[in-house]
Amino acid sequence: MIRISVLYATGDGKTFDHAYYVNKHMALVRERLGGLGLRRLEVDRGIAGGAPGAPAPYIGAGHLYFDSVEDFQKAMKPHGKELFADVPNFTNIQPQVQISEFIAQQ
Amino acid sequence: MIRISVLYATGDGKTFDHAYYVNKHMALVRERLGGLGLRRLEVDRGIAGGAPGAPAPYIGAGHLYFDSVEDFQKAMKPHGKELFADVPNFTNIQPQVQISEFIAQQ
Repeated sequence: MIRISVLYATGDGKTFDHAYYVNKHMALVRERLGGLGLRRLEVDRGIAGGAPGAPAPYIGAGHLYFDSVEDFQKAMKPHGKELFADVPNFTNIQPQVQISEFIAQQ
Repeated sequence: MIRISVLYATGDGKTFDHAYYVNKHMALVRERLGGLGLRRLEVDRGIAGGAPGAPAPYIGAGHLYFDSVEDFQKAMKPHGKELFADVPNFTNIQPQVQISEFIAQQ
């Protein structure tokens, strides 16, 4: 299984509409990719960093789970453009994308 | 539920021993925090970034799940020092810590 993490970094002047993100954007992601291999979808709201009083490095994040990178790319091909075009509707942050393989789950 | 993500950023001269991380470090984390509210533990190995050919922003990451920030802090109090002291045994990267709340899980 792979996890695609879409990370929205905290920063001065950065805005992020959590309600739109969860209720509209992620609903759209599920609708478009749900029949194309999307196994699970998670949303994070950043609370804090590691040091006392430190802000969360990421104000928000979404995690998509697929069986393989190939499945993810195949699913994004017809829908990626539409999904990325929705990003300015909830944030002015350019997301970072991390694709990871689970190597343990205990 | 909260997720504590410990993120090891990719970079020039940065090293990360995935085998030690999974087999020794995370085994130690589970042993020390397992009876203290740790609900789940996951390990990521970074594969790629979002753009074609881009490296993963994080070479590795670990995710710990607790019911609350208070539970996490309580569990770390007696064991945090030992767990952080093990980090140089598998990497020269200073980890970033992100504490998040799940606001959706679909």
